[in-house]
Amino acid sequence: MSPTDCEGRLRKLRAELDRRKVDALVVTHLPNVRYLCGFTGSAGVLLVARRPVFFTDGRYAEQAASQVQDARISIVRGGALPAVAATCAKLGLKRVAIESEHLTVVQLGALEQALGKGVKLVRMTGVVEALRAQKDAAEIELLRQAVQLSSRLFRPLLRSMRSGVAESAIAGKLEYMARKAGAERMSFETIVASGERSALPHGIASAQKLPAEGFVVLDYGVVLDGYCSDMTRTIHLGKASGEARMLYHAVLDAQLAAISVVRAGVTAGEVDRAARHELKRAKLDRYFTHSTGHGVGLEVHEVPRLAAGNDAVLQPGMVITIEPGVYVPGKCGIRIEDMVLVTERGYEVLTPVAKEWIELN
Amino acid sequence: MSPTDCEGRLRKLRAELDRRKVDALVVTHLPNVRYLCGFTGSAGVLLVARRPVFFTDGRYAEQAASQVQDARISIVRGGALPAVAATCAKLGLKRVAIESEHLTVVQLGALEQALGKGVKLVRMTGVVEALRAQKDAAEIELLRQAVQLSSRLFRPLLRSMRSGVAESAIAGKLEYMARKAGAERMSFETIVASGERSALPHGIASAQKLPAEGFVVLDYGVVLDGYCSDMTRTIHLGKASGEARMLYHAVLDAQLAAISVVRAGVTAGEVDRAARHELKRAKLDRYFTHSTGHGVGLEVHEVPRLAAGNDAVLQPGMVITIEPGVYVPGKCGIRIEDMVLVTERGYEVLTPVAKEWIELN
Repeated sequence: MSPTDCEGRLRKLRAELDRRKVDALVVTHLPNVRYLCGFTGSAGVLLVARRPVFFTDGRYAEQAASQVQDARISIVRGGALPAVAATCAKLGLKRVAIESEHLTVVQLGALEQALGKGVKLVRMTGVVEALRAQKDAAEIELLRQAVQLSSRLFRPLLRSMRSGVAESAIAGKLEYMARKAGAERMSFETIVASGERSALPHGIASAQKLPAEGFVVLDYGVVLDGYCSDMTRTIHLGKASGEARMLYHAVLDAQLAAISVVRAGVTAGEVDRAARHELKRAKLDRYFTHSTGHGVGLEVHEVPRLAAGNDAVLQPGMVITIEPGVYVPGKCGIRIEDMVLVTERGYEVLTPVAKEWIELN
Repeated sequence: MSPTDCEGRLRKLRAELDRRKVDALVVTHLPNVRYLCGFTGSAGVLLVARRPVFFTDGRYAEQAASQVQDARISIVRGGALPAVAATCAKLGLKRVAIESEHLTVVQLGALEQALGKGVKLVRMTGVVEALRAQKDAAEIELLRQAVQLSSRLFRPLLRSMRSGVAESAIAGKLEYMARKAGAERMSFETIVASGERSALPHGIASAQKLPAEGFVVLDYGVVLDGYCSDMTRTIHLGKASGEARMLYHAVLDAQLAAISVVRAGVTAGEVDRAARHELKRAKLDRYFTHSTGHGVGLEVHEVPRLAAGNDAVLQPGMVITIEPGVYVPGKCGIRIEDMVLVTERGYEVLTPVAKEWIELN
């Protein structure tokens, strides 16, 4: 694994906390914890004060010692949050921020109770996520490797795509190949949506058998060293009608149009608009019922969201998906998705799988 | 799938809400939503008022129409919580409970703001979870099928357990077999922890290769119709020392001792104590660093937690895991886990895989 620049990340975060006039941030969201100090386990809290402290329990003592960078480690009993509160008190902190889109009401209560009245809890959202949106060189390399690994599975998988094979068998085959190729796990539940089910944007692989004729939407991703890939391709089984081809190429045009406007300085909403505009020309925009894409990194859905009206500005180093789709209820659906790196002057498509019309007969 | 008695569940829940003097509960935790109205999608909120209302967005309109029982369906834009608040206002509700261990601080804020001052939000925890702890006949049958499916994979998997094979390849093989056998997915990240890594209670399958000599802990489960299985077996590769055998049998004795005290009316803490007592006799209790087990159902970790001092009383129909372990840091670890049904007079072990010493040479 490439070296992780936790020190630089913590420095940027502390500058942001200074700007917002808080003494510390209680980082409870595990992907944020991992990003800032390297810990990959499933229980731990990072208190980012002048000198960061990482809290976990005895089960993770060994793992924390080997992974955590740039933070003191505190092994606690009886929950991390009371220990966090005790440390805040000891350090004399006055304004402590929480990740309020991740902290539950019960956790907030525990923290408030343990802190007492001397400390003000400041509700913040998206602070670490905003830092994470711009990937560094090592992260981009991991994302590139993840999407390359998943891309290599696509052509071999086509051999299994036959009428009568269950969607879940296709997903099982894919996941087995992914594991053998070195994936830690899938980055989300594999979508294999065939025939009428292709009209479901979230058609998790079911027991349904692939039809003799119709679309199959394959949407999947892997995790490699913590970083997620996400890609979608749609193929057609059996002889396609002219209308099916027309729908496919309308989605492809929308996807290419959206990619073509990507560069640093453009807003997320403009990218979404480019896709929607192209589908409007084909009178298909009402069948495009979700946003055009999202950031991807340690989590499969990150900021920015490429949605109508979102004025978040694309920055160099962001890695986003571009995935317009068209879903005709009860009939069929098509989605095409790549991962795209935002650069100063434009973009780089990270998904090395062609998007031409594929008809399997 | 067996018929789901949503009506009966909602009736019990409403009785509990009456007892606690609240007009409604906003159910946001998806396994609870599924339990109460049958919806299996990934976005939706159930308002349990006199007449329950299920809120979701356009993506799930079709799915909600086909799945949701005993609740009116409301398709909303702009988030479910503002729509929930509007309905609460329209119904003239005064005291509305939330699931405060699941609702985030941001969601609480959105709900408070939309509700205004006329409505009091009452923070509750574990209300639906307490109902879910006691499984009905249909649920027990699904859990039985899930654990039987996962159990059938164990013996065939042993053939892959050879020195030099990567832990992740074992996990991949297992997961492929599970899919082919009809599992929806795994119920948690598969643990394959070999050699020194067996001392990590949470040793997710890694790239490490199985050693020539040492323990391998296999902890895995599948999901079938939403219900989770969870089981662990530990085997030994190569010639084992007398000490290794002694450790294994101490864990086995502890597991059998804990199972033997299970019956309705006993506390969760008493079951934990039985395991711990047995390991204490072997002077190994300090290596048993986690609790003895947990409930299992729509989620892989449910109440009751079989932990020291927990005075929750076992009820007939509860399905729990019994999984003591011994972990000698830097050396080796052993865990043995079954799923056990609590009955009026005792118990039934649901995991049909023998627990004898297995040495693969």
